[in-house]
Amino acid sequence: MIKIGLLGCGTIGSGVVELISKNSSAAQQILIEKILVRNVEKHINSPYGLKITDKFEDILNSEVDIVVEVMGGIDPAYFYVKQSLLQGKHVVTANKDLIARYGKELQCIARDKGVRLLFEASVGGGIPIIKPLSESLAANNITEIWGIVNGTTNYILSQMYNWGKGFEEALREAQANGYAEANPAADVDGYDAARKLAILSSIAYHKNVNCESIHIEGIRGITSDDIQLAKYLGYTIKLLAVSRKYDDSIMAKVTPFMLKLTHPLAQVGNVYNAIIVKGDAVGDILFYGQGAGKFPTASAVLGDVIDIVKNSISTNRPDNVTPDDLPEANVDIREDECRFFIRISPVDRSAAMGEVVSCFGDCEFIFPNRVKLGKAIEEGQIIVITSRMKEQALTEAVDRLLESGKVNRILNIIRIGEDD
Amino acid sequence: MIKIGLLGCGTIGSGVVELISKNSSAAQQILIEKILVRNVEKHINSPYGLKITDKFEDILNSEVDIVVEVMGGIDPAYFYVKQSLLQGKHVVTANKDLIARYGKELQCIARDKGVRLLFEASVGGGIPIIKPLSESLAANNITEIWGIVNGTTNYILSQMYNWGKGFEEALREAQANGYAEANPAADVDGYDAARKLAILSSIAYHKNVNCESIHIEGIRGITSDDIQLAKYLGYTIKLLAVSRKYDDSIMAKVTPFMLKLTHPLAQVGNVYNAIIVKGDAVGDILFYGQGAGKFPTASAVLGDVIDIVKNSISTNRPDNVTPDDLPEANVDIREDECRFFIRISPVDRSAAMGEVVSCFGDCEFIFPNRVKLGKAIEEGQIIVITSRMKEQALTEAVDRLLESGKVNRILNIIRIGEDD
Repeated sequence: MIKIGLLGCGTIGSGVVELISKNSSAAQQILIEKILVRNVEKHINSPYGLKITDKFEDILNSEVDIVVEVMGGIDPAYFYVKQSLLQGKHVVTANKDLIARYGKELQCIARDKGVRLLFEASVGGGIPIIKPLSESLAANNITEIWGIVNGTTNYILSQMYNWGKGFEEALREAQANGYAEANPAADVDGYDAARKLAILSSIAYHKNVNCESIHIEGIRGITSDDIQLAKYLGYTIKLLAVSRKYDDSIMAKVTPFMLKLTHPLAQVGNVYNAIIVKGDAVGDILFYGQGAGKFPTASAVLGDVIDIVKNSISTNRPDNVTPDDLPEANVDIREDECRFFIRISPVDRSAAMGEVVSCFGDCEFIFPNRVKLGKAIEEGQIIVITSRMKEQALTEAVDRLLESGKVNRILNIIRIGEDD
Repeated sequence: MIKIGLLGCGTIGSGVVELISKNSSAAQQILIEKILVRNVEKHINSPYGLKITDKFEDILNSEVDIVVEVMGGIDPAYFYVKQSLLQGKHVVTANKDLIARYGKELQCIARDKGVRLLFEASVGGGIPIIKPLSESLAANNITEIWGIVNGTTNYILSQMYNWGKGFEEALREAQANGYAEANPAADVDGYDAARKLAILSSIAYHKNVNCESIHIEGIRGITSDDIQLAKYLGYTIKLLAVSRKYDDSIMAKVTPFMLKLTHPLAQVGNVYNAIIVKGDAVGDILFYGQGAGKFPTASAVLGDVIDIVKNSISTNRPDNVTPDDLPEANVDIREDECRFFIRISPVDRSAAMGEVVSCFGDCEFIFPNRVKLGKAIEEGQIIVITSRMKEQALTEAVDRLLESGKVNRILNIIRIGEDD
């Protein structure tokens, strides 16, 4: 039997316990030896009562082979995971914050100690993505990742798009349904997606992508006007985590994108996640499923545990990345190109039009010049869809426009995702 | 260095050679030692000239660690793979015919010899599906598989649906584009899809699903009338490979299905493949990508090779299935339920209507009773969409209808796939 020590027994933890007790053939060799909780009293009547402890040392000093960390957060998870690895125990974690921030260091410790550190559940919930990316697609030069990796924001944007709700209303509804936390900042401001992007990109490009270096914009700035305009122009709006490999750098950004309805990610609704990986040999591969939730996440955690159980003969098995060879990535979005949708509030529309054209150059679409838009659009706005241009050029053009004194402000800038 | 012996150097084989020579970091430890071809003359000027042989013994008796079989077909691939395993060599194969037919036996030999037999490329081309199904989703009780696993038929059906082409015209076009073989039987009659379904189902349900026991209907019977009617009713038509786990049996069928346009598989066009796996913990997971082609397939083959290279320390690693525990599946579609779309040619329409209703019971839709259909429909046909009914009940109802003498013949029966 392989003995498990569980750190945390909240939603995911209890999902892991239930899934093991369902006794799938694959889980028959697995025994839960200890469960670390904050409040022992609360678990006194559980069937695992005798295995419950509130002392991490009980796990560290036990005969546990695999430590399963499902408590989340950095402190004390980081300390516990590190100590477990140093003690020669395998670790399975669902903790994206931890892996995004300390993955490289922890991988190095695991390698030095000849144990494994697996974290399939940290991205995409139950969707197999870490292992396919690091193992099945290993023969590829991965060039791009496009993902909807945050269910909360996808739910909110779906509600706004499908039912015309405002951001605040959709957020409240997400909270009422348990899809958003009381403090929704990590989700709606894009940090959660950025952590997942850092993890995926580090594996895909064999460079350590630091979360802090990712360009992040959340969805608080997306208004009903943006959604209505997107709809009018045949687009939907999604929060995407996108990275791309350049010769000397990596582009990584988490921002709202306008997507044509035919784009493979456009139809991914509500709390679902989907990730597209582009490889030079394999082309585009899309993975889709539930990106969160008790049992999908427990499925990924237990999948990692079973992997270790099956392979426990070999403790030298190298995982995913070879951390000491993992150089820091030079993350930079300036050279990245796309089209931009821009809403502008001019001082005087006629007077500002010339300046807009002069700043953004050849545009694919300008309102009010070329078409009529519905009543949705507040009188007096200027709407632009640029040609493909570099991020840096866009920033400079916006600066020039603001300096001209002809516009009050830029109401919004949303990138447009291409469907190749 | 790990030494590779390549059996076959056609499209896939040369893809593998090119991909290795691209020298991805993962492939640096891999050396092509020998290449078995039918005609040595043809390869005399290749950079691998000295490694080319037409004698399998040269590979068997060499220091090759991994035999990569990309020749296809059963004979002599079966003999070569078996001999290689018996000689203690790992085997990677892209050969679905071989694995569907001899997978269980070959897995047993591999296990007894302490080597690995991997076959990611046998299903879904470059899409990672075998490994995610057998490893990442191991904590799940897999209950269903729904897949578009044959690109040729998907291309033909897409052409028929999108451009109103007939089957023969679409087939010729597929042949002209290299998507269908001169003898298209294995694809259009559903055998290729059935082999892939047998492989996936055996892994998913831990029972050996024999290809011969799968209910197979190809797409030759799909007419422009069917396509037009499907369109009119809001459906598309796809050839699906579907299996489902029951308590004591497994349902496995490859047949055309009508799918609502909102079904996740409805938008999978042209030669693309997509596979939905339903697990009790993870819910629905969808994998999508190029299901065939030189480099996507080579990507999967080389992914398996790299897996073996990375894990070559442990030769005891159990793979996918534990073959000796793998009981034969009892495959039976009779209890399986769905709705059916049926086109009937009655002797006299008015006279036959009562019989139709009496045979099929409560129907969801009957023409000409409840609605008007476009001119598309040949005068005098009866069109039925049944309620959900068992396969066996459908067969019996059809028999009764034919025995009544009131209909000339059943023009077509197409199953309807539900979107849960």
